[in-house]
Amino acid sequence: MPYVNIKITKDGATSEQKALLIEGVTSLLQNVLNKNRATTFVIIDEVETDNWGIAGEQVTKIRNRKK
Amino acid sequence: MPYVNIKITKDGATSEQKALLIEGVTSLLQNVLNKNRATTFVIIDEVETDNWGIAGEQVTKIRNRKK
Amino acid sequence: MPYVNIKITKDGATSEQKALLIEGVTSLLQNVLNKNRATTFVIIDEVETDNWGIAGEQVTKIRNRKK
Amino acid sequence: MPYVNIKITKDGATSEQKALLIEGVTSLLQNVLNKNRATTFVIIDEVETDNWGIAGEQVTKIRNRKK
Amino acid sequence: MPYVNIKITKDGATSEQKALLIEGVTSLLQNVLNKNRATTFVIIDEVETDNWGIAGEQVTKIRNRKK
Amino acid sequence: MPYVNIKITKDGATSEQKALLIEGVTSLLQNVLNKNRATTFVIIDEVETDNWGIAGEQVTKIRNRKK
Repeated sequence: MPYVNIKITKDGATSEQKALLIEGVTSLLQNVLNKNRATTFVIIDEVETDNWGIAGEQVTKIRNRKK
Repeated sequence: MPYVNIKITKDGATSEQKALLIEGVTSLLQNVLNKNRATTFVIIDEVETDNWGIAGEQVTKIRNRKK
Repeated sequence: MPYVNIKITKDGATSEQKALLIEGVTSLLQNVLNKNRATTFVIIDEVETDNWGIAGEQVTKIRNRKK
Repeated sequence: MPYVNIKITKDGATSEQKALLIEGVTSLLQNVLNKNRATTFVIIDEVETDNWGIAGEQVTKIRNRKK
Repeated sequence: MPYVNIKITKDGATSEQKALLIEGVTSLLQNVLNKNRATTFVIIDEVETDNWGIAGEQVTKIRNRKK
Repeated sequence: MPYVNIKITKDGATSEQKALLIEGVTSLLQNVLNKNRATTFVIIDEVETDNWGIAGEQVTKIRNRKK
């Protein structure tokens, strides 16, 4: 009965891509640990780039600099 | 000083229902473990059904099939 | 299909008390929001008092001062 | 490679304030534990006051009473 | 720069199985969303069966009944 | 009333270092957002290096290679 939380930056993941993540991680847990698919939860959080920091900086700023 | 995080699908929980969840879980922790109400935190996250998977599928799809 | 995470300090909650928390919060979600018991997850984390801070201090120290 | 999640009520934190939180907590981890800035993640969640409870009550109600 | 948290019951997942989960979910995020492997974090939490509830019951009890 | 969760690898952070993290992040939230110290929670999780992955690999392996 695994629980998986995936946090990604909010930049346009489609419903189909989210479906692929959910299916993929559920199958991974079934294949590696023989976990029951029926009681596998996956929750995806999409986080604004202003609210995600890496190396002490907002992702918004890191991306602007790379443009 | 408990901390409780409740994740539910986003489908119209009212402010009154959220108030009942917050009061109920705070009282539960007080009654079962004698925890101090004053320092009990409850945070409710409402998750889009496209972002919640169970049994390898998005809740959106599971619900559509049941209609 | 709610997911609930309860964090408490690690100070001797018994298996019976944990069972009461799990049953209580599951029933609360069923009563308030008509959620399906079968797909309600509850995870309890017990945290060392050295690792929990409130008001800028470790719970260990707050408790020692109150003795 | 620390991971930090900061949850605050949603009441107008500016992008500059979020940048200060991200920089501040990253430097704190570097100074106290010698952690690598490059692999330090900080995620800020802003939570509606209806969805945050303390002492058994929604923050919305606590704040209204104090007005 | 995704962050993934996987919670499983504590029942003997080996270091090799954990390595497979970490590699698998990192590749999944790369393949589906073109995420950068270098900044993908995966954290696995192993939870005692007394501390995990489903359908209002501890996993410990559900498993004992099935024996 | 902020809530902060800090996850670090389990490699010997002392009680004093944890106290510094708790005090530091509480003061940061007070200084940047004028948050009330009295209701600021900080929880530190220490994660085994086998259970933390970065760039698709366990931290255990990354560290062994660097030796």
